[in-house]
Amino acid sequence: MIKTAMERTLILDCNEKVGGTVKVCGWVQVRRDHGKIIFLDVLDRSATIQVIAQGDMAKDLRPQDVVCIEGEVSKRPENLVNSNISTGTIELQVKSIEVLSKAEELPFDMGGKDLDLQLPTLLDYRGLTLRHPKVKAIFKVYEVVVDAFREVLKKHDFTEFQSPVIIPQTAEGGAEVFEVKYFDYKAYLAQSPQFYKQILVGVYERVFTVNKTLRAEPSVTTRHITESVTLDAEMGFIDSWTEIMDEVEYVIKHIFKRVEEECESALKLHGVTVPKVPASIPRIKMRDAQEIIYKRTGVDHRKEPDMAPDDEREICKWSLEEHGSELVFVTHYPTKKRPFYTMPDPEDPEHTLSFDLIGRGVEWLTGGQRLNDLNQLTKNANKRGVDLRKSELYLQAFRYGMPPEGGWSFGSERITQGILGLANIREATLFPRDMERVDVRLSTLK
Amino acid sequence: MIKTAMERTLILDCNEKVGGTVKVCGWVQVRRDHGKIIFLDVLDRSATIQVIAQGDMAKDLRPQDVVCIEGEVSKRPENLVNSNISTGTIELQVKSIEVLSKAEELPFDMGGKDLDLQLPTLLDYRGLTLRHPKVKAIFKVYEVVVDAFREVLKKHDFTEFQSPVIIPQTAEGGAEVFEVKYFDYKAYLAQSPQFYKQILVGVYERVFTVNKTLRAEPSVTTRHITESVTLDAEMGFIDSWTEIMDEVEYVIKHIFKRVEEECESALKLHGVTVPKVPASIPRIKMRDAQEIIYKRTGVDHRKEPDMAPDDEREICKWSLEEHGSELVFVTHYPTKKRPFYTMPDPEDPEHTLSFDLIGRGVEWLTGGQRLNDLNQLTKNANKRGVDLRKSELYLQAFRYGMPPEGGWSFGSERITQGILGLANIREATLFPRDMERVDVRLSTLK
Repeated sequence: MIKTAMERTLILDCNEKVGGTVKVCGWVQVRRDHGKIIFLDVLDRSATIQVIAQGDMAKDLRPQDVVCIEGEVSKRPENLVNSNISTGTIELQVKSIEVLSKAEELPFDMGGKDLDLQLPTLLDYRGLTLRHPKVKAIFKVYEVVVDAFREVLKKHDFTEFQSPVIIPQTAEGGAEVFEVKYFDYKAYLAQSPQFYKQILVGVYERVFTVNKTLRAEPSVTTRHITESVTLDAEMGFIDSWTEIMDEVEYVIKHIFKRVEEECESALKLHGVTVPKVPASIPRIKMRDAQEIIYKRTGVDHRKEPDMAPDDEREICKWSLEEHGSELVFVTHYPTKKRPFYTMPDPEDPEHTLSFDLIGRGVEWLTGGQRLNDLNQLTKNANKRGVDLRKSELYLQAFRYGMPPEGGWSFGSERITQGILGLANIREATLFPRDMERVDVRLSTLK
Repeated sequence: MIKTAMERTLILDCNEKVGGTVKVCGWVQVRRDHGKIIFLDVLDRSATIQVIAQGDMAKDLRPQDVVCIEGEVSKRPENLVNSNISTGTIELQVKSIEVLSKAEELPFDMGGKDLDLQLPTLLDYRGLTLRHPKVKAIFKVYEVVVDAFREVLKKHDFTEFQSPVIIPQTAEGGAEVFEVKYFDYKAYLAQSPQFYKQILVGVYERVFTVNKTLRAEPSVTTRHITESVTLDAEMGFIDSWTEIMDEVEYVIKHIFKRVEEECESALKLHGVTVPKVPASIPRIKMRDAQEIIYKRTGVDHRKEPDMAPDDEREICKWSLEEHGSELVFVTHYPTKKRPFYTMPDPEDPEHTLSFDLIGRGVEWLTGGQRLNDLNQLTKNANKRGVDLRKSELYLQAFRYGMPPEGGWSFGSERITQGILGLANIREATLFPRDMERVDVRLSTLK
């Protein structure tokens, strides 16, 4: 194929082409008619540019049309400079327009600063609504969250691995597991990479994975989806379980730093800043948290075995007011509420060396030290009714020498939701799945 | 918890501690008894060190025991320097040994340069065999392959995303799909991120994902597993489908470069070098490849609609002999053998603008240009019996403006297998799943 046409210029690079002729390609975002002149905002992966066309050239164009435009880059008059966009000092005078792909008429306006849709509509049209700048920005933040996690752990000698999706049995004895027809057998979808992380501590000492977590959550809340991506890590040779929290603290601060550096415009679009954290994120025992909540609100959850959503919100308020921190570690959850592999506190075996990280009122992470002694582990599994007969590889890891170790699991969508202050976790998920939806509404499938 | 004990020193850092006392922690790899003296090779995440202990201190130690050893770092005598390991000029004289975790007796010898086991045994003991240095090295290479892929695409403006595992219907109309019980509905496991990649070209122009691919492969070959990780990318605004191959070429060369730079010891352990590629990887039409194979071997596959494994091996031989390239692009596969979304060659609609990259005799990648016109796409789907009624989000991407685009999917295990010259793809997979195994042998579960 011989290319005779002009080479494409990315829109952002037009800033250096004032006075020159360029070809830009992208989507029409907005069209504004001013008599014989039509203004278009055209968007490519680098930026948006204001395009000025004679009416007859652009009269058939509509938002989301894919176009290549040849034209001259010129300086905008001083009074029309728009300092909010990266090409705010230039505009493009059209010479010719080629339409690469014609869009149908949009079902709703995509040109506003906000996309004013109910959640079901936002998701019914996910193939389109993801293109709205404010929605699109969410997944740029998401990308940076995931990448920053990997970056900092690699620097700290953690080895990345890929954890399986299909597993021979449920890892944690829970009921909320999806079943797969696996040839003539039954298999399950992984609810966590827990067993595999621990096996690999025996190999690489420190490991992490960006992992698909699949849970048959029977509830439709703003915090639950059936398919999510967790940022999981596990580290061996710890002297104390508090080292795990130290590492988590370092990781989340690094994530915030990179989001701040690289997602300025996304944060601005959403009108938020990254959460405030002091030098040390507060660490408080669950029982002490319940006591504080009781004193602050009169709500007495001091005998409850877990933190309720309201408790999590209240302890975050406390943390912000008392320690200037929008994040708080809650520690020492009751042994019976944590999985069988969790290390009990030797000084108080009814509670564990485990923690959650609560961010802006919602749980972002769970972690802790694990049992690394085969005997204790299998005894505990038996006591809890967890069948490890299909988990031979997991048992091998302990049978053949396992150092003291622990780890954690971040919810990537929870972090993104928390940073951007989104009302529903589905907004922080590209293609959210829940009881009622897998891309399309399940009720429409019957 | 008050830490009074000595801080751990990573083994590699002992090189700078000659004459000093350190504590190292890790696994006993090998024990060699020499009368009253016992030599241990101890391994941590950084390196292996030779440890010299009085017999009584180490007499109960066996391979895979987890230990912390305090001792003095000393220079080895000149004649005992081992230039093959990174601590070959030093050794550690034991003062005290603490056993953190005791290993059971190993079921086979793990101390040799090779782990001489049949594949089923290698996998039955995966929790242990992954610790063998030569096995462990495979997944260091694997890690670099994945990371290099991400790195180069980020540099080229590709946005990373996470593609769903659970899908409402099979994307490509194939039969080899796993079914999931999804509450009261049937759902499926994704065989590829194809639809989501394309939707996101409409959002970010260029996207990639490190993706779980789940295929109910009913065959037990050395090349097939049911769960694999693909390195998928998709790019919009291409002027020609050959740009996709140009990008693939750039990516694979970058992967080779980083593996060469960072995995020297792994390559050495496996006695291999990264594949040879010239400035340009040869590109040859499938029909021409069949003609060449016919001329070289007399095997007449010139009417076959696809390349057989033998053909792939033979065309790689040709490529190496004629072009000095261990990789070769085979292009223009027949339309009927490619998925419905593949762009037919306008000059020869019976063949497509698609390609495979064959490396060292095995397919590593498949890619091509896609149909980006909604009409053509749905017509083609209908003709091929692909039901797109549940793929509303996918259709939206085309309904609302889609530029000319294409992409590819690398098999990450295939690349790793190819680089290291492993006989079976299972060796390049941490926890391989196939018809007969999900961690444990399925036949043992009934």
